[in-house]
Amino acid sequence: MNQDYIKPDNWSIIEEGFDINKVKSSESLFSIGNGAMGQRANFEEHYSGPTFQGSYIAGVYYPDKTRVGWWKNGYPEYFAKVLNAPNWIGINVSIDGEALDLFNCLKIENFRRELNMKEGWLSRSFKATLQNQTQINVETKRFLSLDIDEIGAIEYHVTPLNKDAEIQFYPYLDSGITNEDTNWDDKFWDVLTVEHDDNQAFIMSRTMKTHFYVCTSMQTYLSLNGTILNQDKIVEERDNYIEFQYQNKVIKGDTLTLTKFGGYTVDRNHDKKELCSVAKRTLNEVSKLGFHALLDLQKNSWAKIWEMADITIEGDVKAQQGIRFNIFQLNQTYLGKDAQLNIGPKGFTGEKYGGSTYWDTEAYCIPFYLATKDQKVARNLLEYRYRHLDRAIENAQKLGFKNGAALYPMVTMNGEECHNEWEITFEEIHRNGAIAFAIYNYHRYTGDYSYIPEKGLEVLIGIARFWHQRATFSTLRNQYVILGVTGPNEYENNVNNNFYTNYVAKWCIDYAVENIERIEAEYPSDFIRIMNKVKLSKAELSQWKAVADNLYFPFSEEHNIYLQQDGFLDKELITVADLDQSQRPINQKWSWDRILRSPYIKQADTLQGFYLFEDHFTTEELERHFDFYEPFTVHESSLSPCVHSIQAAKLGRMEQAYTFYLRTSRLDLDDYNHEVHEGLHITSMAGTWMSIVEGFGGMRIKNGVLSFSPKIPKQWKTFSFKINFRNQILKVNVCQNETHFELDGTAALNILVNDKLVTIHPNSLVTV
Amino acid sequence: MNQDYIKPDNWSIIEEGFDINKVKSSESLFSIGNGAMGQRANFEEHYSGPTFQGSYIAGVYYPDKTRVGWWKNGYPEYFAKVLNAPNWIGINVSIDGEALDLFNCLKIENFRRELNMKEGWLSRSFKATLQNQTQINVETKRFLSLDIDEIGAIEYHVTPLNKDAEIQFYPYLDSGITNEDTNWDDKFWDVLTVEHDDNQAFIMSRTMKTHFYVCTSMQTYLSLNGTILNQDKIVEERDNYIEFQYQNKVIKGDTLTLTKFGGYTVDRNHDKKELCSVAKRTLNEVSKLGFHALLDLQKNSWAKIWEMADITIEGDVKAQQGIRFNIFQLNQTYLGKDAQLNIGPKGFTGEKYGGSTYWDTEAYCIPFYLATKDQKVARNLLEYRYRHLDRAIENAQKLGFKNGAALYPMVTMNGEECHNEWEITFEEIHRNGAIAFAIYNYHRYTGDYSYIPEKGLEVLIGIARFWHQRATFSTLRNQYVILGVTGPNEYENNVNNNFYTNYVAKWCIDYAVENIERIEAEYPSDFIRIMNKVKLSKAELSQWKAVADNLYFPFSEEHNIYLQQDGFLDKELITVADLDQSQRPINQKWSWDRILRSPYIKQADTLQGFYLFEDHFTTEELERHFDFYEPFTVHESSLSPCVHSIQAAKLGRMEQAYTFYLRTSRLDLDDYNHEVHEGLHITSMAGTWMSIVEGFGGMRIKNGVLSFSPKIPKQWKTFSFKINFRNQILKVNVCQNETHFELDGTAALNILVNDKLVTIHPNSLVTV
Repeated sequence: MNQDYIKPDNWSIIEEGFDINKVKSSESLFSIGNGAMGQRANFEEHYSGPTFQGSYIAGVYYPDKTRVGWWKNGYPEYFAKVLNAPNWIGINVSIDGEALDLFNCLKIENFRRELNMKEGWLSRSFKATLQNQTQINVETKRFLSLDIDEIGAIEYHVTPLNKDAEIQFYPYLDSGITNEDTNWDDKFWDVLTVEHDDNQAFIMSRTMKTHFYVCTSMQTYLSLNGTILNQDKIVEERDNYIEFQYQNKVIKGDTLTLTKFGGYTVDRNHDKKELCSVAKRTLNEVSKLGFHALLDLQKNSWAKIWEMADITIEGDVKAQQGIRFNIFQLNQTYLGKDAQLNIGPKGFTGEKYGGSTYWDTEAYCIPFYLATKDQKVARNLLEYRYRHLDRAIENAQKLGFKNGAALYPMVTMNGEECHNEWEITFEEIHRNGAIAFAIYNYHRYTGDYSYIPEKGLEVLIGIARFWHQRATFSTLRNQYVILGVTGPNEYENNVNNNFYTNYVAKWCIDYAVENIERIEAEYPSDFIRIMNKVKLSKAELSQWKAVADNLYFPFSEEHNIYLQQDGFLDKELITVADLDQSQRPINQKWSWDRILRSPYIKQADTLQGFYLFEDHFTTEELERHFDFYEPFTVHESSLSPCVHSIQAAKLGRMEQAYTFYLRTSRLDLDDYNHEVHEGLHITSMAGTWMSIVEGFGGMRIKNGVLSFSPKIPKQWKTFSFKINFRNQILKVNVCQNETHFELDGTAALNILVNDKLVTIHPNSLVTV
Repeated sequence: MNQDYIKPDNWSIIEEGFDINKVKSSESLFSIGNGAMGQRANFEEHYSGPTFQGSYIAGVYYPDKTRVGWWKNGYPEYFAKVLNAPNWIGINVSIDGEALDLFNCLKIENFRRELNMKEGWLSRSFKATLQNQTQINVETKRFLSLDIDEIGAIEYHVTPLNKDAEIQFYPYLDSGITNEDTNWDDKFWDVLTVEHDDNQAFIMSRTMKTHFYVCTSMQTYLSLNGTILNQDKIVEERDNYIEFQYQNKVIKGDTLTLTKFGGYTVDRNHDKKELCSVAKRTLNEVSKLGFHALLDLQKNSWAKIWEMADITIEGDVKAQQGIRFNIFQLNQTYLGKDAQLNIGPKGFTGEKYGGSTYWDTEAYCIPFYLATKDQKVARNLLEYRYRHLDRAIENAQKLGFKNGAALYPMVTMNGEECHNEWEITFEEIHRNGAIAFAIYNYHRYTGDYSYIPEKGLEVLIGIARFWHQRATFSTLRNQYVILGVTGPNEYENNVNNNFYTNYVAKWCIDYAVENIERIEAEYPSDFIRIMNKVKLSKAELSQWKAVADNLYFPFSEEHNIYLQQDGFLDKELITVADLDQSQRPINQKWSWDRILRSPYIKQADTLQGFYLFEDHFTTEELERHFDFYEPFTVHESSLSPCVHSIQAAKLGRMEQAYTFYLRTSRLDLDDYNHEVHEGLHITSMAGTWMSIVEGFGGMRIKNGVLSFSPKIPKQWKTFSFKINFRNQILKVNVCQNETHFELDGTAALNILVNDKLVTIHPNSLVTV
């Protein structure tokens, strides 16, 4: 653990006391979002200290100049990045002629921030003594509406404490923003119009190159002690900026409040010519409703999300806070409403990783959304990839593959690859496996086969074709091999026969064949339609099978384990426990060659295969592999601890499982990786959820039957979670000695508990 | 072969006829240089067609912004690049008010370019009909003085042919230049002063960041039919530009000539405050001498170079032209006068590879300079690395090595690494071996051991320390291994146990130990001095030996060959002959992953080891390895054909040797790799020399004795070369049935010819 300033609390993230060294960290941790937009917890008023300003709109990106020293054939021309969007939250404040700036106050007392996860709002309060000796109390509250997701709201209260004071508010819109990670201070937005109308203002801007149109808007009003003032204002307008200026003399003890509504309308949802008029309508609507009514809607909407997605833990506030923080952030990032969107690794909390789609979605996020939302949400995530199939085929063509073989990009915004490191872009091809597995997982969980004949099979065929062509025949081994790959452990590059990659490749082909046969038998018209499209011959199919049936898996007789890759045993096998702590994290301390020749594993690799295909292996096999690989694992990927927590729990190693759980659930709150200032690890948060539900809860689907083998860390009194299983809600409450099941649905549900069949009837409690 | 427009000629490179599509190619091929500066064969007058302008000053570089998508620990902060220097050759010409521009003439006849290699000058002549119907004849001659290497000279003759004409000359200096390979149009030069004095002009400029000071200067005068005119001129001066304007009415048939001297004085050679006054003095000196006297000096100086370095081939003009072109360009690039300089892969002919020092110098160029120059030249090249030893130690430290281990950079200008691809920068570590081998080679050839106790041993110790620390112990094999390297074949990255790398590593340790022991015994005071400096204990020495004595070399029992690397036999072993020609060159057609998993070899790798350590292996072993590896070799590196030519000759495969010879010697003239427009392959030109002297001549040093096993391609009547062996000049003339030896020296020389001892007495011909 590397920081410990967040107050433990069951429902809120709370910071007390102002520390300029924690501003960027808190800007990440207190981020808010509503699926359509999100923002770091930047102050509304100007702050001249170190800060990382960020406001983001879902699906709005920019193809930045590719930065590569040495070009390789096949690299994408551009590198997509999430764009910092125009600022609508800004409210500068001046007190008796001095700008309020927390970096320059004489004294700041009672500083407190709260991110209320139960109700979905962010607040801040403090007492400031300015350089001019005026003392004020400030309270702000802000949220991004789940109900009207193009809008957010802010209330900003100022109360002079030691004297009457002249208070000026300058709420503004600013489209002159840039990215923190920009090369060479490029701008990414062209401003088209800056307008205002009464107490509303609008900036129409357009991203360069991608030409996303966005109207950023605001509406503001002033009130004194809760009564709206009909106040004159000055309008200051510049190229890419508009500001309203309000001035008021406020008597000591009175509270002047600026209320601001604002947000974005984007041309993904509206005709671009109507963005400003839509914004105007929306502002009219919410201002008629008012801040508090909109906040009440917000509370209701979050209550509905929690009703379905909450996990409770009794007896361990930090663990409780951790899991709720993870669930809250996931829901802030992606709500599944729009199949054009996906889940970026940093969500709306930072710029790193370009905000794009990674295999994280399929490998980590889909189980969470499957179990906590309507199944349409997971299906939307699958369709996102179906919609990109043609581009995945083009991508494979660029790398020399033929005949409809599909390689999904490592990183993407619109289906095109937008990453350019050869060892990742060209070689971390296991991502294709996760995309096929997600289809299997969706069907396994929901029982809804319809997606596969409708859309999924084409994806499976493209992927199977890729694996068939990617394998080569080794005369030496008389088997097929897959050379030159990077596995999930990115601390090895260009290795041969990565077990995970080979295993998932074989599985992809087998699964595609199985589904082709089923669809031929059960969905003949779909079968004909698909075959006409993909032109798959029996000869090609049997070539696939030849590869799948005779693929090589590196195995050590000595250790009785599958090898991570051909050369693994050549390494100096010094465990992490024996590695000098001063060398950690190795990705910050070591040059890349040293990392590559070391045995250290960034995240589950062979064990990732044992996680996905758990039922292909015995528990003894899992234990042997876990005991071999985990000691070399440095868990320097946010995606690592969750898988290990699940497996440790399965192996009955509850202390270890608990340690991994804390690490995954409080990764950002406690800043394990020294990087929370860059943003949160959103996609790994779904892994946290898995580590409770699949790890401690032991939830699996076995032949279509929901199955549990509940375990509980000794630190906890009880924990509970709910899952949506085939449109019924099952609540599972695990105590130290028993587990309770409760079903909110209409039909009795047979489940397995520790491999014994238990029937749960609707609305009756079953204790096991 | 991909182009064929250069006229075969024994001594000159000749182009006839003007073709805008060949301009960039000819700009490279007709480049001139004098070791201190060089330039592409750009026209003096403005040319508005496609052109690649380039003028370069030895040792003047710029640390450009590193371009990397994903930063890796240990990468250098900057990427050094050769800088395009201010233009001093420019002479714009206007005829009857129309600018002469070969891209826009109505007609160009009798266009001819000649690079006279015997005398070291470049000429151009043509008859042009301008848009205004005026016909002129133009003749130009240009050279960069070997004798006064800060100066070059140009004569530019214009003769109106069909009418009297108004001729204007605008000789200029321009410091407002940029690089062809610049990112984002950056400028690299700050201009400090622009001055003129009578008919001389000076621009003082300074490179940004590196702060190299350069005075670019010119002096011009006009003559009519050979008589100097005392002509008024106008001076036009701008920020970074100065131009003289001469105007003359010239009667049809008369010839107006502009003579221009110009060049650079640099602060590597002079106090920076005196650069302009030195330039002034030099201009005064050469203008007093005059163009033709300076040209006479030039002819004499080149005659001296050829006297020593020439290789003659009778019966094959193209082969003759090829080898002279290679020898000429090498001498234009590096003359060994300045130990601060080295040999960039493109010399002064282009920007690619940043003009920096690669292992090419040690592996390819040193044998050429050893045999064709005084041994001080090769020693200067060794000292270049000695001077960089501290930085090589720092470089190794950045990668986690300790205790004085040295890793020389892959690419450097000043000793610091300036390349950033992890698979090259961090993993192509065999370069360290070439640097040690050059020391061995120097001693073997010259018999001068003094360099090793004086300087070389420290380098050898730093390198041995690196190899000792870089090897790791494999419990599996019970041997030391070297994991994660890139061998000379850059078409495999991050492989384990590259045979060449392992072999050179072991040799480096053994050679360092051998020299430590010899110096301890024979040079006790040097020994004490060095040991005090490097702090080498007996314990460390025995650790080195443990690694060298128990290092693993991958070997295939089945094929009875050493394997290029552990995984080589897992590849699909389809030979180049069976590869579809449409896929060639693979580095332009295939994505990187596909290249990496293919068996195709860019340049000699295992065979490079057999080349350097030929006497460690039998001819049968060489033959077996040659037969195994050459069929997979695509020779897509300029450094590839020469080694294979030498080995094919040794194996008596003269047809193959001859084919490889043509490919290496005419690589640029015939543009085998479709890239001559980017510049010439200077360092591989030394390989061409080796393929004649070591290949066909079979020259070796065996236990200090010069040895030959002459062979001659059937296409040749005879060929001859000279070598400087320990301060005596031996001329070797190989005919189809006999070989003649002639010694220019003072002492009889025992040599081996086909392993038989032959004594050559000074100034008497011996025929074998």
